[in-house]
Amino acid sequence: MTDGSEPAPDVALDLKRYARIGLDEALLCGGKTDEQIITILDIVASNLVSMLLTRLEPNVVEAFPEHHRRRLDYDPLSRTGWYGEIAPARPTIDVAIVTGGTSDLRVARESGRTLRYYGHQALEINDVGVAGLWRLLERIPELRRVRVVIAVAGMDAAIVSVLGGLLGNVVIAVPTSTGYGVAHQGETALAASLASCASGVVVVNIDNGYGAACAAIRLLNSFGGRLT
Amino acid sequence: MTDGSEPAPDVALDLKRYARIGLDEALLCGGKTDEQIITILDIVASNLVSMLLTRLEPNVVEAFPEHHRRRLDYDPLSRTGWYGEIAPARPTIDVAIVTGGTSDLRVARESGRTLRYYGHQALEINDVGVAGLWRLLERIPELRRVRVVIAVAGMDAAIVSVLGGLLGNVVIAVPTSTGYGVAHQGETALAASLASCASGVVVVNIDNGYGAACAAIRLLNSFGGRLT
Amino acid sequence: MTDGSEPAPDVALDLKRYARIGLDEALLCGGKTDEQIITILDIVASNLVSMLLTRLEPNVVEAFPEHHRRRLDYDPLSRTGWYGEIAPARPTIDVAIVTGGTSDLRVARESGRTLRYYGHQALEINDVGVAGLWRLLERIPELRRVRVVIAVAGMDAAIVSVLGGLLGNVVIAVPTSTGYGVAHQGETALAASLASCASGVVVVNIDNGYGAACAAIRLLNSFGGRLT
Amino acid sequence: MTDGSEPAPDVALDLKRYARIGLDEALLCGGKTDEQIITILDIVASNLVSMLLTRLEPNVVEAFPEHHRRRLDYDPLSRTGWYGEIAPARPTIDVAIVTGGTSDLRVARESGRTLRYYGHQALEINDVGVAGLWRLLERIPELRRVRVVIAVAGMDAAIVSVLGGLLGNVVIAVPTSTGYGVAHQGETALAASLASCASGVVVVNIDNGYGAACAAIRLLNSFGGRLT
Amino acid sequence: MTDGSEPAPDVALDLKRYARIGLDEALLCGGKTDEQIITILDIVASNLVSMLLTRLEPNVVEAFPEHHRRRLDYDPLSRTGWYGEIAPARPTIDVAIVTGGTSDLRVARESGRTLRYYGHQALEINDVGVAGLWRLLERIPELRRVRVVIAVAGMDAAIVSVLGGLLGNVVIAVPTSTGYGVAHQGETALAASLASCASGVVVVNIDNGYGAACAAIRLLNSFGGRLT
Amino acid sequence: MTDGSEPAPDVALDLKRYARIGLDEALLCGGKTDEQIITILDIVASNLVSMLLTRLEPNVVEAFPEHHRRRLDYDPLSRTGWYGEIAPARPTIDVAIVTGGTSDLRVARESGRTLRYYGHQALEINDVGVAGLWRLLERIPELRRVRVVIAVAGMDAAIVSVLGGLLGNVVIAVPTSTGYGVAHQGETALAASLASCASGVVVVNIDNGYGAACAAIRLLNSFGGRLT
Amino acid sequence: MTDGSEPAPDVALDLKRYARIGLDEALLCGGKTDEQIITILDIVASNLVSMLLTRLEPNVVEAFPEHHRRRLDYDPLSRTGWYGEIAPARPTIDVAIVTGGTSDLRVARESGRTLRYYGHQALEINDVGVAGLWRLLERIPELRRVRVVIAVAGMDAAIVSVLGGLLGNVVIAVPTSTGYGVAHQGETALAASLASCASGVVVVNIDNGYGAACAAIRLLNSFGGRLT
Amino acid sequence: MTDGSEPAPDVALDLKRYARIGLDEALLCGGKTDEQIITILDIVASNLVSMLLTRLEPNVVEAFPEHHRRRLDYDPLSRTGWYGEIAPARPTIDVAIVTGGTSDLRVARESGRTLRYYGHQALEINDVGVAGLWRLLERIPELRRVRVVIAVAGMDAAIVSVLGGLLGNVVIAVPTSTGYGVAHQGETALAASLASCASGVVVVNIDNGYGAACAAIRLLNSFGGRLT
Repeated sequence: MTDGSEPAPDVALDLKRYARIGLDEALLCGGKTDEQIITILDIVASNLVSMLLTRLEPNVVEAFPEHHRRRLDYDPLSRTGWYGEIAPARPTIDVAIVTGGTSDLRVARESGRTLRYYGHQALEINDVGVAGLWRLLERIPELRRVRVVIAVAGMDAAIVSVLGGLLGNVVIAVPTSTGYGVAHQGETALAASLASCASGVVVVNIDNGYGAACAAIRLLNSFGGRLT
Repeated sequence: MTDGSEPAPDVALDLKRYARIGLDEALLCGGKTDEQIITILDIVASNLVSMLLTRLEPNVVEAFPEHHRRRLDYDPLSRTGWYGEIAPARPTIDVAIVTGGTSDLRVARESGRTLRYYGHQALEINDVGVAGLWRLLERIPELRRVRVVIAVAGMDAAIVSVLGGLLGNVVIAVPTSTGYGVAHQGETALAASLASCASGVVVVNIDNGYGAACAAIRLLNSFGGRLT
Repeated sequence: MTDGSEPAPDVALDLKRYARIGLDEALLCGGKTDEQIITILDIVASNLVSMLLTRLEPNVVEAFPEHHRRRLDYDPLSRTGWYGEIAPARPTIDVAIVTGGTSDLRVARESGRTLRYYGHQALEINDVGVAGLWRLLERIPELRRVRVVIAVAGMDAAIVSVLGGLLGNVVIAVPTSTGYGVAHQGETALAASLASCASGVVVVNIDNGYGAACAAIRLLNSFGGRLT
Repeated sequence: MTDGSEPAPDVALDLKRYARIGLDEALLCGGKTDEQIITILDIVASNLVSMLLTRLEPNVVEAFPEHHRRRLDYDPLSRTGWYGEIAPARPTIDVAIVTGGTSDLRVARESGRTLRYYGHQALEINDVGVAGLWRLLERIPELRRVRVVIAVAGMDAAIVSVLGGLLGNVVIAVPTSTGYGVAHQGETALAASLASCASGVVVVNIDNGYGAACAAIRLLNSFGGRLT
Repeated sequence: MTDGSEPAPDVALDLKRYARIGLDEALLCGGKTDEQIITILDIVASNLVSMLLTRLEPNVVEAFPEHHRRRLDYDPLSRTGWYGEIAPARPTIDVAIVTGGTSDLRVARESGRTLRYYGHQALEINDVGVAGLWRLLERIPELRRVRVVIAVAGMDAAIVSVLGGLLGNVVIAVPTSTGYGVAHQGETALAASLASCASGVVVVNIDNGYGAACAAIRLLNSFGGRLT
Repeated sequence: MTDGSEPAPDVALDLKRYARIGLDEALLCGGKTDEQIITILDIVASNLVSMLLTRLEPNVVEAFPEHHRRRLDYDPLSRTGWYGEIAPARPTIDVAIVTGGTSDLRVARESGRTLRYYGHQALEINDVGVAGLWRLLERIPELRRVRVVIAVAGMDAAIVSVLGGLLGNVVIAVPTSTGYGVAHQGETALAASLASCASGVVVVNIDNGYGAACAAIRLLNSFGGRLT
Repeated sequence: MTDGSEPAPDVALDLKRYARIGLDEALLCGGKTDEQIITILDIVASNLVSMLLTRLEPNVVEAFPEHHRRRLDYDPLSRTGWYGEIAPARPTIDVAIVTGGTSDLRVARESGRTLRYYGHQALEINDVGVAGLWRLLERIPELRRVRVVIAVAGMDAAIVSVLGGLLGNVVIAVPTSTGYGVAHQGETALAASLASCASGVVVVNIDNGYGAACAAIRLLNSFGGRLT
Repeated sequence: MTDGSEPAPDVALDLKRYARIGLDEALLCGGKTDEQIITILDIVASNLVSMLLTRLEPNVVEAFPEHHRRRLDYDPLSRTGWYGEIAPARPTIDVAIVTGGTSDLRVARESGRTLRYYGHQALEINDVGVAGLWRLLERIPELRRVRVVIAVAGMDAAIVSVLGGLLGNVVIAVPTSTGYGVAHQGETALAASLASCASGVVVVNIDNGYGAACAAIRLLNSFGGRLT
């Protein structure tokens, strides 16, 4: 109950999510105040669990109290933080992350850091956009050896269709907001990926490296992984 | 009449609006200059009435003269201000405000503060988005006891349909500009709420916590309230 | 389980919806095949219940078997059908339906027929658009006597703001797909209604006369109505 | 080379696609003339292979020569055709297809028929939209037993988030063009699915039941399937 | 000719435009560098003519050399500047400028200052939006006495239709970028004005107070004005 | 009052509109049923007045009873009808109507027929688009002699800016839905006209030849015309 | 001059366009009435010139008088007609036309027929979309031998970037309206082509095979062609 | 391979692009971190090659180490940098760059600087928009003497159609994001250019002066240029 200025608690963490679906609740920091983020970390700390933070800006990290900052492994390029312990690295490499250009790396790294939080290592292949097609073609044999390929690309996202046409693996496209004008903040890459002439490519939200990694983990979990 | 540089008075307050429709004119501060806002407060003060201010940024409050700041109860999360006296709190709780996530709180608080300005207290239930459905399901009995539910949610706004399908109450959706990419600054939540598969859900503008509260007040007024 | 050509039953009616929320499941016929609609009516008939059908085209009615057509009360302007018994008319008039122009009548009638299915009669005021403002102003006293006003309007939907500014009642706007060019199939009326300068107006989907009526029924139910 | 009226052959089938990626080239009939479709079937027949046809309208089937029609297994609801032999049915059920409403069945059936063409049977659960949430909740245990869930839903697509929040499986959303007004021919369901508050949901093009099935097959192939 | 770094002169002023069409070339400062603006003023000064500057931000004025600043009459609300002499004021009042709310004043003032630059005085009526309809209705007789009414309004722009329905004058709508969410930076006001149910209303670009004034001047010029 | 199937009268004609603003109510036939249109003509006939009908399709005219068809002067290209007497032709030519191409004639003729209904003759200049600029330049002296130029153009609408730059008259742009692809059903012509680099051009809705004519009539009325 | 029903001539052909820019005026038949098209052919015939007709539907050809039909070479796939003599075929092949899929052929043929009308033969390479990349790669040497490559592709238009990255020729992309859902009637292919990661690709309107051919002709004319 | 925090090299320069297509890889600096840009320059420097940098903000240049800054020729208006040696100037002038207004110069200069990097000088004609048509018409003879005209224009981009209609040259339109409101950040200029009534105009992305220059170079290369 509230009289308008003394509200109910703002946070209701879903601490059993991992048990239910094999993924923790992550903390999307964008759109939250510093106070709200710190409150959530307080709860996480008092429950002795870990948490993945995304869209975490450097100046927000600086506002954290020291004891929270000490538990945080922060990567500024991807703006992700690992709060607390992460899973030990598994020996196999089941996922590859491919980028069209250097500007897409910030999103690819969000995928990589999410995967690693859950113990998955990834093969990273950077800057192999279609404008220089041969850079990509020579990496195809390596890509055939993983189960899932995350294709991170902006602008025309042509690399998505090229990968989908050459590979039988699961291909998850992450459109990025790279580019200007008709790139439309990633809308064009999104629509082009969804309309790909290669069958069976799947897509996540623009710049959602986190979501692509979660999809890969759902897939790995559903085959002899956590849920077996 | 103007010669282009000496205009007519800028402000024509609608001081009889409450008598006409049971709602005062509120002051949307966004898009107005500090001078314009202060001029309006001057008029309000000299008429000995109260006013609700919305979209009021902290730096604007700081620009207020001391005598205005003293009469102002300001809440930075919702960016609302109560200028002058507000109505006494009524004993019953007729309205609930439900949010999908912590980022939606700033908008929910705008609803709560608007309701409270007119004397209505609200039940606040926070952070019960569909990704952790059980958090929401266990609150349904409480929600059945109010007359109006204001559902504040961004991104896919799935909570709106879940509430509309489980409750027979009036459900007012407030889409929020939370999220990124295809969240489209709240457009997706807006369209999803309007296209809800639950019949009879009604919707207000994106981030318009104020409007949802006014709708609730119209409803309460029309039944044994002010207008009886 | 299916081998791809022998699917599971297509229909899972929610026959307890009325008990849960005070509204039956209605049948949106648009997008369904004749066979699917007839199958649903078969189930409805065998459960001895009634059903409201919307977006029901005349040529579909003609494809109905005689025993279904006999139980149907069909209105071609609104493309609605009452299948089976409807509720007895209540004595009070709690809802008014106002249209901007003759072209909006098909949608207004959908509201009226939905209300009547549940036993509510409505005051209908037609063709009182803002281009001839006095036609509307002289009806204001009548409109003040109901609890809910459903405002059905296309193009600029200016009537919504005029009503919202003059009345303290609940105002539910139904934007219509009337007009051409920048009317954008009702998108302009929708956006104008949501951005109305009158506070507390609520809105439903374009051409959704059915939804506006359901919202009104939720409201009436929540006050001394069905749920008391 | 052409002089403008005697063009090169119109068709260059990619007959080795199955060997490369585990999926045949399918024939999207929409946008092709009857002559073009028949020419392609001629090539398919003379190569003694099979082909899946999508978006195949009944009147086009009627224009086929008798010897092509004899080899075709056509389903009018999904507008799909199996031309030639299909794969034998596998014993396990790895995929479920869930629809929000009856109108989504045409798309769900396209998924089902595509899966069956490649030998996969699917669990079909129809008409379990969020407006009647309990219909869906009681099927969750069954859904936990498959590896991939294809969620077919239009309008607000709230079922996608509910499934994603309750299940750890791979969830592939197929937005449908069901609904009217702000449903925007499936754009709203698409955006809502991409912005889902449940992490790791993946999405294909609007009404692309075929693509969702192909994604499921890629996934099954990458684990102990064809490519092992 | 250029070698890529020593370009042709950047500016080609159209100094005979007034003689041709009765309107000078004005200087839209937005999108130009300080250097480009100052270069243009240099040319204007050396030709001994005047110029109207629009979208001129205060910090740009501060970058002007003293001799230019001295010749400038700057108004910060409308961000307009009169550089050099303006026309003497005419005795008659042919134009009225009406605003829906205080936030629209910055655009209305751009119209007023443009008119005054050419010698036309205007009747200004502020803050008479439709939410308080009576404020507007009581000014109608005054408005009937001018030839042109410039209606400046954002959000739903309902005032445009109300004015168009009550007045036989030329009504020029200037949609403003006031508001948030579905106000869409003025797109909704623009579309609503173009789709107005009042016949013969004409419209200019969003926030284009300058253009509306120019249209009024074209009109006045074509009747016994400059061109007679 | 209605019980849902016996509604209030559908039509409330605004027969005093001409006295109020110098323009009759016209009948936009698109979106109305044949029955609704005929009902309106019955009222018009019984009031012994005239009416302009727009968007009137030939097959609707054929559905009229003989006594209505006899009073109708119908033009199939513009789909306009004059019902009853029209005003006598005035001797002066104050308006010109210019089209970019032959496809724009249907809209231009709607303007011409609307003007003529009120007694105004117009200079028509057809098919003088910018692709053949000299066709247009040689007509400029003629165009300088009228007071208002209605420029009807689709696609890029470049003719609007060329006319606005060469003429001091009032220029009213009517964007047309001519063209395909990025012509966007007239949206591009609309936006280009509103963003015209020529100052003071005003614009009406896409294909709204009727509205442009009404604007011209408002203008002519405000100067020594009807209202003097 | 017109009284509203007896208009000026509708057609003002630009018969000197070829002399001016090396391209005739072509006749876009879409959006014109049969009468308007026939009137234009009458003028063409009486001037003893030829004309290219585009977007010419078969039923319109059937409405032509016999003497016009006799002079017409009509191709139904591209909906183009050559009226009168066309230029003799040149010996060299300077242009190639490449399509992604069979559905794009209708647009490619429009390019081919336009080129041939002006005497240019083209190399046509069909159905070499990126989903089967090797089909395209093996044709690259041939493509290196022409000066201009017209790439006709819908959906994701990935072929445009692949060609632009592999070839140093001029590459003109023609997006097509092939596909469904997010293909957005060609908007996605258009945006993807404009945002191509390959530098220096140029683009024309959706489905504008005619325009791409004209661009190629402008290019060939400017080098030792007609204008030398 | 990566463990999530130690990624593969971020950069894979396509150093053989010039040999393949006659254009180097350029560096689009927007969207890249300072570190990424400097890493690329390190590679360029160590390979003893040159590079063109676009969208390079002044503050990024300031972050460069001294040895990189020394090799850079930076132009702040166009935000371009030449890193290392550029090609010697060719004696002929094959390209003209025309702008509608001063605000378009920043984009035109990007074209000019790109051309000059490859040794091409250009004729620059500035500020000749259609609002003052005669400024443009008097330059037509000069423009007829080049092979390619790059037309840089925002807002309505009418200059594109005027140039296309008067010239037989290749015309490449570069829409600019100049203007406000319906200029839509260049979308309107883009659509208007693509829908130009002048046949055979080609278009590049909004503000893409670089791309237009590359297209011109492809064209010049294909005729007796580099590839001969």
